[in-house]
Amino acid sequence: MPGRDEAAQLDAADPLAAFHERFAVAPDGLIYLDGNSLGRLPRETPDRLAAVVRQWGERLIRGWSEGWMELPRTVGDRLGAGLLGAAAGQVAIADSTTVCFYKLASAALAAARGRSEIVTDRDNFPTDRFVLESLAAQRDLTIRWVEADPHAGPDPDQLRAVVGEQTALVSFSHVGYRSAYILDVGAITTLAHEAGALALWDLSHSAGAIPVALDADGVDLAVGCTYKYLNGGPGAPAYAYVRRAHQERLSQPIWGWLGRRDPFEMEQGYVPGEGIAQVLSGTPPVLGLTAAAVGIDLSIEAGIAAIRGKSTALTTYAIALIDERLAPLGCAVGSPRDAARRGSHVALVHPDARRLSRALIEDGVVVDFRTPDVIRLGLSPLTTRFTDVHDGLERLRARLGP
Amino acid sequence: MPGRDEAAQLDAADPLAAFHERFAVAPDGLIYLDGNSLGRLPRETPDRLAAVVRQWGERLIRGWSEGWMELPRTVGDRLGAGLLGAAAGQVAIADSTTVCFYKLASAALAAARGRSEIVTDRDNFPTDRFVLESLAAQRDLTIRWVEADPHAGPDPDQLRAVVGEQTALVSFSHVGYRSAYILDVGAITTLAHEAGALALWDLSHSAGAIPVALDADGVDLAVGCTYKYLNGGPGAPAYAYVRRAHQERLSQPIWGWLGRRDPFEMEQGYVPGEGIAQVLSGTPPVLGLTAAAVGIDLSIEAGIAAIRGKSTALTTYAIALIDERLAPLGCAVGSPRDAARRGSHVALVHPDARRLSRALIEDGVVVDFRTPDVIRLGLSPLTTRFTDVHDGLERLRARLGP
Repeated sequence: MPGRDEAAQLDAADPLAAFHERFAVAPDGLIYLDGNSLGRLPRETPDRLAAVVRQWGERLIRGWSEGWMELPRTVGDRLGAGLLGAAAGQVAIADSTTVCFYKLASAALAAARGRSEIVTDRDNFPTDRFVLESLAAQRDLTIRWVEADPHAGPDPDQLRAVVGEQTALVSFSHVGYRSAYILDVGAITTLAHEAGALALWDLSHSAGAIPVALDADGVDLAVGCTYKYLNGGPGAPAYAYVRRAHQERLSQPIWGWLGRRDPFEMEQGYVPGEGIAQVLSGTPPVLGLTAAAVGIDLSIEAGIAAIRGKSTALTTYAIALIDERLAPLGCAVGSPRDAARRGSHVALVHPDARRLSRALIEDGVVVDFRTPDVIRLGLSPLTTRFTDVHDGLERLRARLGP
Repeated sequence: MPGRDEAAQLDAADPLAAFHERFAVAPDGLIYLDGNSLGRLPRETPDRLAAVVRQWGERLIRGWSEGWMELPRTVGDRLGAGLLGAAAGQVAIADSTTVCFYKLASAALAAARGRSEIVTDRDNFPTDRFVLESLAAQRDLTIRWVEADPHAGPDPDQLRAVVGEQTALVSFSHVGYRSAYILDVGAITTLAHEAGALALWDLSHSAGAIPVALDADGVDLAVGCTYKYLNGGPGAPAYAYVRRAHQERLSQPIWGWLGRRDPFEMEQGYVPGEGIAQVLSGTPPVLGLTAAAVGIDLSIEAGIAAIRGKSTALTTYAIALIDERLAPLGCAVGSPRDAARRGSHVALVHPDARRLSRALIEDGVVVDFRTPDVIRLGLSPLTTRFTDVHDGLERLRARLGP
């Protein structure tokens, strides 16, 4: 039975338990189950930020030749090798996830002239849907919306029915933001390739929580954010992956000075920089990159296998608690029950989820609400304890029960 | 005669002298003449950043409802009212200058269907040129390059010759990045309007250094960076101005969740948010915005009239020194001699400028080089002293002289 004793035992046996101390603890005894929205503050981040601010003050523009200019690629390479299964030279960190997604989706569509369709999921994360809608409108393309089971995500049969010779781009989230379903990146990418299309993945809810293997899975393009499981801070810059084989032939549309070859020569005419550099546009956001690097390095240090193990144990424990204690009170599990198909959050479904989410926050349990009826429990492997899950759900039971 | 005594007297009489102490001083006695590339660190910035990082650690996602989400607009409004001559609700801060420029240029071109030309300056800042080239290629438009005197910028006669019924967009930098010429924003915007075109201005080298009057000048669209004269930090986020009258009819192309109406409802279909909110795409970069706000507020506190007075005095003094002491050694002034037409930097022209710039940096005088033959002396009104100008140019004389 998933009681508090069991939770405490699980915490005691947790091989990642020491990482909890590597993060700041909110002083008011907060139970934080929203690390999939904004990850916690690593204890090392304030000092690292203070150091880069000092460097700004003392070194001024000389900082640009002391590593700042390369941060998008050096931190990108670390992220790629450590957590994305991407060899060096394919990941750059800059801009927001939305802007990265726009760049890569636009590049893919420009390369697929003659094909008229984009395939995505009606329940995909809004920003991805909106960018695709904008690009479809610009280019007079059609979006083939997959109407998938929101708890399970698009299945292969659904995709085979819509992916075909008119498909320019297939784009999904690796882990669904609402129910946490995991899609099979390799299988769907292969299906796209068999139709002659490219695949663009959003890793925002997967990188740092579950294994990602971009190179091995043949992925063409991917983006993701660094402020969720990667603990990079509010509005931290996002990353873009462009498979090396595509770097010469794809062209992202936001041609800026820092994506150009020899940017400081200020020459006439845009000539894309070599390799992943061409995905850059403006000046790298040094403060955001510095904080993002700290979070990324912590996840790399923990190791994705251990992270995934903890994540699975956390979500399994949460589901057991919901089944035993909250289902009788009108709650249901809205995430896949097969742990292999479930990311690191659990969707708790209740018809009154909106009001309950607010009540939980008043009770010191931070969750978030997702329309129409989901309380999202984000269980961040480096920072969430089993006792946090237990105590948080007990407070929900107190709100619901007699 | 512009000797060191005069410089010291000018410093003593400088009404903005106290602002020098509001910024960190590099510990190695550095003479910093590059505040137009990266402004200095305000002394208040480390504490303000530490506070927002603490807020991240303690408040976590609750920070988003404690002001973070509104930062693009609240800081934008302060910048607009204080330094851009823009009433509230027209400025948002987010993304890089390149991305902001892309959004607004694209919006303008989409609204000008049937018109086939973009007018800009061959010597405009590279990122602006490259974005316009990308959009021209996407939309099969022609760029009418104005081949202006690089030291004076496009003149009205040149513009009248190319702006016409085919012009969709006229776009220039308010202050030229190389020679510091100031263009007449009001006159050029009127000329664009008379032809039925829109005007998009890049304020990167003007905001915080010279008066800007976007509303009064009838400007349609503007962007600029916050890391130069606004002292916002390396890679600080940029701003975008969209005149209120255009906010309903222009649509920027990077449709993201935070530019949508009711973003957290996660609904189907992109519906632009109200007012300037629609210019946003992804999650606001909270760390970068926090640092940018400190720098912006310092310039507002100083007041643009005083800033402009100091700026003019600094550049006038530098030019007098160059004329008297460096012209005999092969240097020339590459900036307008009419102070009313000159921004806050001085282009010092020398055939060996590239090597000399490096030598000056070795000598502890930070300047930057701009191809082919310009040493750029950035004289940042809040942080540059007349003695800095004197001492920096004396070190150049020592390099050049016998």
